[in-house]
Amino acid sequence: MALIGVFDSGVGGLTVLKGLAESYPQHDFIYLADTARLPYGTKSASTISNYLDKNISFLESHKVDLVVVACNSASTVLLQQNKAYNLPVFNVIEPGAVTALKHSESKKIGVLGTRATVQSRAYIQAIHKIDPNAQVHQMPAALLVPLVEEGWVEDPLTTMVVLRYTKPLLDLGVDVLILGCTHYPVLKSVFQKVAGPSFPLVDSPEALKEMLVQKIPSLSEETGKKGLIKIFCTDLTPHLEQLIQNLISPLPMQPVQKVDL
Amino acid sequence: MALIGVFDSGVGGLTVLKGLAESYPQHDFIYLADTARLPYGTKSASTISNYLDKNISFLESHKVDLVVVACNSASTVLLQQNKAYNLPVFNVIEPGAVTALKHSESKKIGVLGTRATVQSRAYIQAIHKIDPNAQVHQMPAALLVPLVEEGWVEDPLTTMVVLRYTKPLLDLGVDVLILGCTHYPVLKSVFQKVAGPSFPLVDSPEALKEMLVQKIPSLSEETGKKGLIKIFCTDLTPHLEQLIQNLISPLPMQPVQKVDL
Repeated sequence: MALIGVFDSGVGGLTVLKGLAESYPQHDFIYLADTARLPYGTKSASTISNYLDKNISFLESHKVDLVVVACNSASTVLLQQNKAYNLPVFNVIEPGAVTALKHSESKKIGVLGTRATVQSRAYIQAIHKIDPNAQVHQMPAALLVPLVEEGWVEDPLTTMVVLRYTKPLLDLGVDVLILGCTHYPVLKSVFQKVAGPSFPLVDSPEALKEMLVQKIPSLSEETGKKGLIKIFCTDLTPHLEQLIQNLISPLPMQPVQKVDL
Repeated sequence: MALIGVFDSGVGGLTVLKGLAESYPQHDFIYLADTARLPYGTKSASTISNYLDKNISFLESHKVDLVVVACNSASTVLLQQNKAYNLPVFNVIEPGAVTALKHSESKKIGVLGTRATVQSRAYIQAIHKIDPNAQVHQMPAALLVPLVEEGWVEDPLTTMVVLRYTKPLLDLGVDVLILGCTHYPVLKSVFQKVAGPSFPLVDSPEALKEMLVQKIPSLSEETGKKGLIKIFCTDLTPHLEQLIQNLISPLPMQPVQKVDL
């Protein structure tokens, strides 16, 4: 039975936690939301590198077997710094790049992300490392995170916004879309409505799931036990607690704990 | 001829700068956007108090005659701390409260703001300090800032979002709405469409204009000169520069300068 640590600057990474916990319910999970220091997207690489070390140390002190960095900004810095840690540390960028290339025939790939993710060009670099000839078209989609945080998911308004961001990429002929932000899987059904029910969408939880079990095959072994989910936040408000409940539901979790880092 | 300093954590306060510069074109203006440290809304009062001191010192070093804190979070801390500065410092909360009470007959006042502003209850306190019997109904409106920053102003989508946030307040019988965030004046025509063309809307630039000239009557004197606008940012990206141009237009300004604070 493994203990898997997941962290993000906020609650978006809960989609990753949820995806992994649904696939590997026999394992335990610890999630850390660094809500006191969010957003990471506007901070310098050296500051984020410092947060990475602190968050990984916190999870290590809880004896996790591996860490998933479920945050695009922190993943970008992780990829750049090429640093060694005492335990396996996974990012959300590379698995998305691998999975997108696998699904694409035209090798034209669309990426939706926050302005920071798009500006970092991390997905372009990760895709070109595997296939230098692939065409990558990016679209910053600033409204999607606030729409998820408002809880306006099954909402015609949100469909209109998703259409607005997605159509220019589809018009360019992309045949796969990377949902390049951990908040976006919440909107997967909306993307599927807009792009078509069988259009390939690559989200971080699914792409990560495949990569994890490839690198650590024992994860898929049955243990006969049911794992627990513990959630920590560096800052906690009632709205945040409600948001966490909504995002993790219907999975059971223990009460959210506040921690100072 | 006066030199007026204005600051905000980001670019929203440019609506205040623009309103003041249009009313008092004979004076000079310096604007500071503390973009390296935004958002203030999620930070503690002691951290914001520290930023306040730094930003006011920066403007003082440029020999401004007065400072306008065109940021709701910083204004809230300014009101709480009751600290004396070497020059007059104005906030955006009190003028809104005064103007709203002046316009309201039913003494039912609606306030729209970011989640941080709503949680701070700063408008409620400022209104109750003048009229303890006034009813204040608040509504957090998280999507409005990203909509303005996307530049989606004349847009049916934005009208739908504004309607969504405004209708519950109108249904409660408020007869005046405070646009309690410096980004919102950009959406004034949308609010006017939704609430009715003559519905009283109180925005920070207008409310401030009245209060400033009341306290410093010389501001309205004609000097025969044309003032200059200088803009400083603590962090600068191409998107930000474009956003500043859009928000300040059609007023002329000198090239944006980056400054380390």
